[in-house]
Amino acid sequence: MAPSFVVNGDLAAAAGGASVPAPTNTGRFASVYSEVQTSRIAHELPLPSVFKGSFQIVDGPASSSAGNPGDIAKLFPCLFGQPSAMLVPSSASAIGSGGTLKIGVVLSGGQAPGGHNVICGIYDYLQERVKGSTLYGFRGGPAGIMKCKYVELTSDYVYPYRNQGGFDMICSGRDKIETPEQFKQAEETAVKLDLDGLVVIGGDDSNTNACLLAENFRSKNLKTRVIGCPKTIDGDLKCKEVPVSFGFDTACKIYSEMIGNVMVDARSTGKYYHFVRLMGRAASHITLECALQTHPNITVIGEEVAAKKSTLKNVTDYIVDVICKRAVSGYNYGVILIPEGLIDFIPEVQQLIAELNEILAHEVVDEEGLWKKKLAPQSLELFEFLPQAIQEQLMLERDPHGNVQVAKIETEKMLIQMVEIELEKRKQEGTYKGNFKGQSHFFGYEGRCGLPTNFDSTYCYALGYTAGALLQSGKTGLISSVGNLAAPVSEWTVGGTALTSMMDVERRHGKYKPVIKKAMVELDGAPFKKFASLREEWAAKNCYISPGPIQFVGPSSDAVNHTLLLELGALA
Amino acid sequence: MAPSFVVNGDLAAAAGGASVPAPTNTGRFASVYSEVQTSRIAHELPLPSVFKGSFQIVDGPASSSAGNPGDIAKLFPCLFGQPSAMLVPSSASAIGSGGTLKIGVVLSGGQAPGGHNVICGIYDYLQERVKGSTLYGFRGGPAGIMKCKYVELTSDYVYPYRNQGGFDMICSGRDKIETPEQFKQAEETAVKLDLDGLVVIGGDDSNTNACLLAENFRSKNLKTRVIGCPKTIDGDLKCKEVPVSFGFDTACKIYSEMIGNVMVDARSTGKYYHFVRLMGRAASHITLECALQTHPNITVIGEEVAAKKSTLKNVTDYIVDVICKRAVSGYNYGVILIPEGLIDFIPEVQQLIAELNEILAHEVVDEEGLWKKKLAPQSLELFEFLPQAIQEQLMLERDPHGNVQVAKIETEKMLIQMVEIELEKRKQEGTYKGNFKGQSHFFGYEGRCGLPTNFDSTYCYALGYTAGALLQSGKTGLISSVGNLAAPVSEWTVGGTALTSMMDVERRHGKYKPVIKKAMVELDGAPFKKFASLREEWAAKNCYISPGPIQFVGPSSDAVNHTLLLELGALA
Repeated sequence: MAPSFVVNGDLAAAAGGASVPAPTNTGRFASVYSEVQTSRIAHELPLPSVFKGSFQIVDGPASSSAGNPGDIAKLFPCLFGQPSAMLVPSSASAIGSGGTLKIGVVLSGGQAPGGHNVICGIYDYLQERVKGSTLYGFRGGPAGIMKCKYVELTSDYVYPYRNQGGFDMICSGRDKIETPEQFKQAEETAVKLDLDGLVVIGGDDSNTNACLLAENFRSKNLKTRVIGCPKTIDGDLKCKEVPVSFGFDTACKIYSEMIGNVMVDARSTGKYYHFVRLMGRAASHITLECALQTHPNITVIGEEVAAKKSTLKNVTDYIVDVICKRAVSGYNYGVILIPEGLIDFIPEVQQLIAELNEILAHEVVDEEGLWKKKLAPQSLELFEFLPQAIQEQLMLERDPHGNVQVAKIETEKMLIQMVEIELEKRKQEGTYKGNFKGQSHFFGYEGRCGLPTNFDSTYCYALGYTAGALLQSGKTGLISSVGNLAAPVSEWTVGGTALTSMMDVERRHGKYKPVIKKAMVELDGAPFKKFASLREEWAAKNCYISPGPIQFVGPSSDAVNHTLLLELGALA
Repeated sequence: MAPSFVVNGDLAAAAGGASVPAPTNTGRFASVYSEVQTSRIAHELPLPSVFKGSFQIVDGPASSSAGNPGDIAKLFPCLFGQPSAMLVPSSASAIGSGGTLKIGVVLSGGQAPGGHNVICGIYDYLQERVKGSTLYGFRGGPAGIMKCKYVELTSDYVYPYRNQGGFDMICSGRDKIETPEQFKQAEETAVKLDLDGLVVIGGDDSNTNACLLAENFRSKNLKTRVIGCPKTIDGDLKCKEVPVSFGFDTACKIYSEMIGNVMVDARSTGKYYHFVRLMGRAASHITLECALQTHPNITVIGEEVAAKKSTLKNVTDYIVDVICKRAVSGYNYGVILIPEGLIDFIPEVQQLIAELNEILAHEVVDEEGLWKKKLAPQSLELFEFLPQAIQEQLMLERDPHGNVQVAKIETEKMLIQMVEIELEKRKQEGTYKGNFKGQSHFFGYEGRCGLPTNFDSTYCYALGYTAGALLQSGKTGLISSVGNLAAPVSEWTVGGTALTSMMDVERRHGKYKPVIKKAMVELDGAPFKKFASLREEWAAKNCYISPGPIQFVGPSSDAVNHTLLLELGALA
């Protein structure tokens, strides 16, 4: 139980690499590992069977785009239409030119469990399949490419990060390579390091960026090829060929552990309604997955709120109706899940905030409230409906540009206050006789950097290994794609999907830009339909499930998230 | 991965109890278990070796009290001075009268992981050692005793709660048996159910209450004996014979998992200071244990703040000093642990709140702030030092008695604001050139109802088994005591400690009352000294440890918390 694995110093010996330079990264190396962390380093990862022998790349048919193919073709003249690729066993000797490779890798955007394993997968592929190759890790995200800030990854260097959470091996960043000057900087780095390839590990924006970079390198006749990898805990980067983004599985299981604990507490204590806000600003996949894992009494899915054009009052009433019904059954407690981005799904709230921004920028806000007459009637009604504390928050807290800081609104606390007000009203009307006490939670950062589950560890390793194979075979502008994920790992399929095939155009800041559209919760998809078919029972009764802490060996250690299994048709 | 264990219906068959009445508790039974929950039901628990054969009770010397023995002797004329008891192997046939027993059990106060296993331990002891006995579970805490609200616990009934978190088998409550009428009600229940014994599972107050009940029953010549069990995640109910209260181990590991994740996130992102408030209002054991498990940059221990008579400004300056030093080293991130009860440890804050309560009750609070002249100079200075949001919170939010609600102050957010203000000052003075962004967290309810660790599962089962043995042997007024906890379970010692020996008197509401003093963090104890010897290094460098999720099999699954091992001298 005492920390038993001192990484510093002993590592070179442990890894058995006598001639490898001593570690220079002092982040992890100066640190001490817990017993579980140490055990995870040694955890062996299975690979899809195609990687057990020789393989070849088989191209599919020419691809199109997710929308507006004409525009995408214009934006990607070199890459548009290229086929997706599949790795298949082969008796042929080897793919690629046979020479060694120089590859760069970069982490882009927010943390997601498993990122280190993607890098380890690329590294091991090169070690085992293209001996003598070099892997550079760009530091601090895309800025590391532009500034040519990198570290050469060695066996010793990557060793302590195997199956570990976080992005601290080379760290991440949120910069983008967008302007002509920035593309020029990237080219200079590619030339300077003589890069054969670059792996971009990131979300929808980062993979769009990766494709632009691939197009740019190709158009300049640079040899540097670019492969993307699907990363985001939010689960909103996916398509048929890329069934899930990595990190989603781990993050949802960490949140579900906490939600399950809170549920047992709610049932034991019998007097609290826990309002749990979950990370995921754009899509509600995390909230939906956690609901499927834990069976809360109420779950708000942003995409449904938007589809129904619900108002904040509608959402409040829905919650209050369930609370009233449960009070009749003698339950004055419960658990309610709310996606972080809820407010962004409610049109009237967006309207109110836009009007407030305008008023606060140009008008005098008088104490008597005469300024409110500037609000449209519907916005005024909503404003008056909001609890005073939220009204004040909307008026006071503004960002440097003078805009209301929506992100700072603690939606779970706002809903508790609105529910309290509505319940008080119903109490006075005689339609509610229960007791209500709200407790608020936000589960966010805890989930982004946990130790990756066995699923995420294995999936990421395969993604990295695949990226290595795609680069060796000369591919560019593809996203590493590992499929058939409900089957045993040996049967997983491996290939690359044309990034342009996932793209559409979107007008941003007056310009048409290529985008990989975020995959939202589909209201006619299997995960939502399963949830919708059960939620009334979950609301009325207590069907709570407590998944418990993530296990790395023994029961549930090979579990896969419900969303993925339902989407693959592997779970009824 | 799919929930595979439907408890409803199949239970009777699974437990093999054909003649046992069908389950009537619909809380758990209507529910579905996760794979991990199901696997925990089947987890077999080792017992101390004394329970493997016949044993006898050996009494120690006459006991005294923790303080004011004269007063305690007067309050407990029947029980004062009674010896503690130890179970030792014996070739004699059996302890006790040989007849069957009727025993009641009650859960008192807040949830703590392992409570169900105490009940299972009592149940199994009776099943295996005193066949034909009956165990009643009083529902909803001590109120269940007073109202004679109970359920007869059967093999089927307790089965699905084995090694599970929560208190929902019979639920808990915070009522106390205090007044003569309430003691009378308890007597009536004891007589009505013909109780031979009662096990009270609770914290310091509940165990004090248990002893008063034992004294009362004895003084009335009732046969009902009372045994206590040490429960609280806060870890503040302990003494030499009771080395730890149950639940502390699990709760600290759950919090440490989250803290470790946040640390990896902090290091990966490189731009946030995470302020983590941890449950534990009275003592800072949880915060200290989590610090020992994770090595945060800054840890505030309430007992040290009190011993040093620190002001809020002192605490803020300490944090700011570390942040400034780290900025020089290039670290603009970190993790800071704060005990929930911090404010209660700062004398000047208590003073300010007392004055505010007085002013708010009797004076007009004018907008110009003339009312502030009523504050003592030191209190005024503190008030002006507080961020405006906290000032408003102090003035606005009051409980039904008109008192400021200290518990509602989010200490972690308050500290972030005060740190921001001080850093801004230093920036203008030129002594700080870094960037600061605070993120706040409160880890509380997530930890109270988690699946108990192997340690808590085993410890609680032994506590329950011991309680059964003590009752069978005719003991009363003892607290179940399981010791030698750093050794293998087979070598754990088993006995009972006189509750009066843990007591002192305290003046409450003008009356002298017996109390079991809360065990605070000892500044010259091994856990604090270890922490103090390392904290400077933790502050300057990044020595973060990520313990990862609690494991039930494999590496770290038999880990025991640092505090206990250090106090037992089993860890250097």
